[in-house]
Amino acid sequence: MTTDDGQMTRQMKALRVEKNQIAVRDIQLPERGQEALVRVLLSGICNTDIEITRGYADFKGTIGHEFVGIVEDAPDGKLVGQRVVGEINAGCGECELCRVGDPRHCPKRTVLGIVGRDGAHAEFLRLPLMNLVPVPERMADEHAVFAEPLAAACGIVDRTPVTKDKNVAVIGDGKLGLLCAQAMALTGASVLLIGKHPEKLRIAQRRGIETATSKNATRRKREFDVVVEASGSASAFNTAVGLLRPRGVMVLKSTFQGTTEINAATIVVDEISIIGSRCGRLAPALDLLRKGAIDVDSLISEEYPLRDGLLAMERAAKKGILKVFLRP
Amino acid sequence: MTTDDGQMTRQMKALRVEKNQIAVRDIQLPERGQEALVRVLLSGICNTDIEITRGYADFKGTIGHEFVGIVEDAPDGKLVGQRVVGEINAGCGECELCRVGDPRHCPKRTVLGIVGRDGAHAEFLRLPLMNLVPVPERMADEHAVFAEPLAAACGIVDRTPVTKDKNVAVIGDGKLGLLCAQAMALTGASVLLIGKHPEKLRIAQRRGIETATSKNATRRKREFDVVVEASGSASAFNTAVGLLRPRGVMVLKSTFQGTTEINAATIVVDEISIIGSRCGRLAPALDLLRKGAIDVDSLISEEYPLRDGLLAMERAAKKGILKVFLRP
Repeated sequence: MTTDDGQMTRQMKALRVEKNQIAVRDIQLPERGQEALVRVLLSGICNTDIEITRGYADFKGTIGHEFVGIVEDAPDGKLVGQRVVGEINAGCGECELCRVGDPRHCPKRTVLGIVGRDGAHAEFLRLPLMNLVPVPERMADEHAVFAEPLAAACGIVDRTPVTKDKNVAVIGDGKLGLLCAQAMALTGASVLLIGKHPEKLRIAQRRGIETATSKNATRRKREFDVVVEASGSASAFNTAVGLLRPRGVMVLKSTFQGTTEINAATIVVDEISIIGSRCGRLAPALDLLRKGAIDVDSLISEEYPLRDGLLAMERAAKKGILKVFLRP
Repeated sequence: MTTDDGQMTRQMKALRVEKNQIAVRDIQLPERGQEALVRVLLSGICNTDIEITRGYADFKGTIGHEFVGIVEDAPDGKLVGQRVVGEINAGCGECELCRVGDPRHCPKRTVLGIVGRDGAHAEFLRLPLMNLVPVPERMADEHAVFAEPLAAACGIVDRTPVTKDKNVAVIGDGKLGLLCAQAMALTGASVLLIGKHPEKLRIAQRRGIETATSKNATRRKREFDVVVEASGSASAFNTAVGLLRPRGVMVLKSTFQGTTEINAATIVVDEISIIGSRCGRLAPALDLLRKGAIDVDSLISEEYPLRDGLLAMERAAKKGILKVFLRP
């Protein structure tokens, strides 16, 4: 299209949250600046996207942080034409945390589609070149797009040791829970996935993972060394406490809007540890996907063109639906 | 006194919580059974005692778990005449946890004056012989009685490493907070004690510990590697989160009745760890007291005879009052 001053500006579609409303809009293509411009091939809807529409992170802009795309333009032409996935945190590059190699926790960081940076449910996005990781050649886009959430699931072991002598429970049979259960099972630990949906639990069962309904799981009080809370439900916190042995470790994975009421005395008396875990490293996750070590195919529910982003978000929030893709 | 059937039974005074009422009562002297009978020389009132009167732990019976006493009677005559302090948890001796040497977390354990076992604010108490630790000869009763709470403060380092390169904040200038701040300072770590009472903060200052009011401390957001929550206030949880650097560790020390509202997403995003810490080992605590490494004298506020236990509890709950002793 042509602007008032006669210059050509390129427009693109993007799924945006603005003033508590969500809509697919035509917006200006991002300028790459000192970063890389990536043409999105496929993006995945995460529960965090849905939480953002409920006010989580107070984010306004293009949502989405799970993607696979092709580098269209970059400083010095680096990676141009390469298919990539991307680390979603971009640090300031100057603070102490960035200097010691931890931009993920930089207080001034932006986060793709979550904090101060337009996201992946769009035709194009931009990210620093250093955030991009090439995707192995023969990997399907539909697999590569799982690199980010799988990295987050695998990131649990960077926060607490999970070894084959451990009893691990994962609460939540959604997308994240199913990835966490599979990632934990790869450590050799004995894993129980706790959920509500027989058809979702079966995905884990096919990988040899034991499953239980929430009701049945309460019989196994104080049995677990590690409990991963991946259900995104505030009530699961107390369920998790009940499943932990004394001095057990609860790993919190879900980000959701709102508060959770806890009994702090129980944490003190049973000397429990509660450990927050967010993102993980993309390269090892891509490697697991390349080897077929994780069943992501069973997690794919539906795909929509980006222009139907609103419908896709509605579908993704429905019970029984797992991963929903958007294709620009 | 003589009972109806003509037998002599010995009576003793005990400070008891019964049906949400607290009173000093004359009750029967405990029979030692397979345990040791200890004549209490001095007991200390802990905030947990006060919380029990508010319903914490749903305990009914003689309260109190900080004491120094003399062994009056024991199986095989062991330790009789010896001055002792005591580990407050008594495991079942049979379960897996007891067998691996962790009776503190035995699911069937009793806890002196807290769970299923009459406590120390009485003329006599009973505990398993293995729970008793002899007190060095020249140590004052008023110092020895601090062994249990000091052990709890020192127990923090069994749960998370605190070393001289760490920045540690302790929230709460009560008895527990002042012990925690001193215990943490002994590690060589840089310690900030955060409280509300200038006269209590001065106790820490005299030991070279930096102090701040809660208001001033908020200027030091995201600075601390470890924050110890020892204030017993639900609101301190969020203050503690704010002070922690990303991937920092919050240590929960206070047991109190009621729930705390937390923002679980912050814990996930900043990858914080929250670690419950309850009791610690008595022998190293006695050793620190023997060496004068910890100022407990400044923590002693008042002493009452056991018969004035009710007044003593009222005083202990007053702002500005630190440790209150009961002497049978």
